[in-house]
Amino acid sequence: MNGVLYGVGVGPGDPELITLKSLRLIKSTEVIAYPKLKGSKSFARNIIEEFIDLPKVEIAIEIPMTVNRLPAQRAYDAAAQKISTHLNMGENVVFLCEGDPFFYGSFMYMHSRLYKKYLVEIIPGVSSMTACAAMAKKPLAARNEVLTVLPGPLSKKELERRLADNNSSAIMKVGRHIKKIKSVIDRLGLMDSSLYIERASLKEQKVLKLIDAPEVAPYFSMVLVNKEEDPWL
Amino acid sequence: MNGVLYGVGVGPGDPELITLKSLRLIKSTEVIAYPKLKGSKSFARNIIEEFIDLPKVEIAIEIPMTVNRLPAQRAYDAAAQKISTHLNMGENVVFLCEGDPFFYGSFMYMHSRLYKKYLVEIIPGVSSMTACAAMAKKPLAARNEVLTVLPGPLSKKELERRLADNNSSAIMKVGRHIKKIKSVIDRLGLMDSSLYIERASLKEQKVLKLIDAPEVAPYFSMVLVNKEEDPWL
Repeated sequence: MNGVLYGVGVGPGDPELITLKSLRLIKSTEVIAYPKLKGSKSFARNIIEEFIDLPKVEIAIEIPMTVNRLPAQRAYDAAAQKISTHLNMGENVVFLCEGDPFFYGSFMYMHSRLYKKYLVEIIPGVSSMTACAAMAKKPLAARNEVLTVLPGPLSKKELERRLADNNSSAIMKVGRHIKKIKSVIDRLGLMDSSLYIERASLKEQKVLKLIDAPEVAPYFSMVLVNKEEDPWL
Repeated sequence: MNGVLYGVGVGPGDPELITLKSLRLIKSTEVIAYPKLKGSKSFARNIIEEFIDLPKVEIAIEIPMTVNRLPAQRAYDAAAQKISTHLNMGENVVFLCEGDPFFYGSFMYMHSRLYKKYLVEIIPGVSSMTACAAMAKKPLAARNEVLTVLPGPLSKKELERRLADNNSSAIMKVGRHIKKIKSVIDRLGLMDSSLYIERASLKEQKVLKLIDAPEVAPYFSMVLVNKEEDPWL
């Protein structure tokens, strides 16, 4: 019988924000896989560092960060083959995912490649979005409010249109798009309703008014916009 | 010195989907508060049942389910006073929240009432949205996809407009709005792209094609719409 592939959410960064279930699966599974950027350590692997007491078989998937998707697709193809080898031998594999596996996570690329052939189980995790809201102490949405999640790479026009059409928005993957995002939000008169959050739940975490956000933002940063102040009394 | 109010996410239902941090705070805090509907047990309190080994001071906040918000507001006012009494004596209070405290959670009503006077810390949790996606094995969004979270009580017109404008949507608080939601999704030709999920992560969980969803849905149900099939290869 084939092994099971587990897509395991490990939360936004603070190791204490992992769930009991993710922790149990990480501890009890011998093969773990995770993405990493060339030249740096895997963020997902770092989060669980303190929980690894026995050596494991580790599949590090080096993802080239290029606008062209082909090199990354090839890396996932190769990793899917390695993971298949273990699954075919009846061994379970845990794929570590920052945040939640199905919320803008890289696990989706592995899922697409393997779910037709193998049993895949998804263990949800605390997403960066709710973690940012928690650290910023800024509620996302309640009652009949619409919440829109916008990727930072969207065009200026599209960002503006969607931000104008919502009370509450979370802008993900801010990184090098910070200048564009600031300018759109300023034009809409929403600067005072917007916060910038960097590396939520980690020691290096920053929560700033958007107007004070740095010129250069890291990939793991987010902007939260909520037009209403204290709308929940 | 005043105590700290902790808004603690306990996840979508499976006790194993609680985080280490939420569990630590629940175990180490003597006063816990939680909302409950009249005549039924508190869902959030149920989730953590197995972790309570010592008796605690418990503040059950009975929320009347009426369209008129006033009775619920009065219940939160009264609860805020009870919680304040403990905080004033220097005792910490844990407020239990299903899912995540700032993602359509009732904690916001308590937060609004107390954050100006007391230190409030938010512990994020696994939201029902990512839990539903995990259980349905249906990715929410990736890359530059926009994800919209829509409350079920929205008008037919508004639901239709927003569903048409997105690749990926999560409809929360489906409950008695299931018929309206089905009809809108059918009109948009999205029936085959839509799943219905009920009580995600619990033993009674149901994952169905939307077309097979029951006529009467419980409050804890969700509809996920994603127009693309396997968009992540």
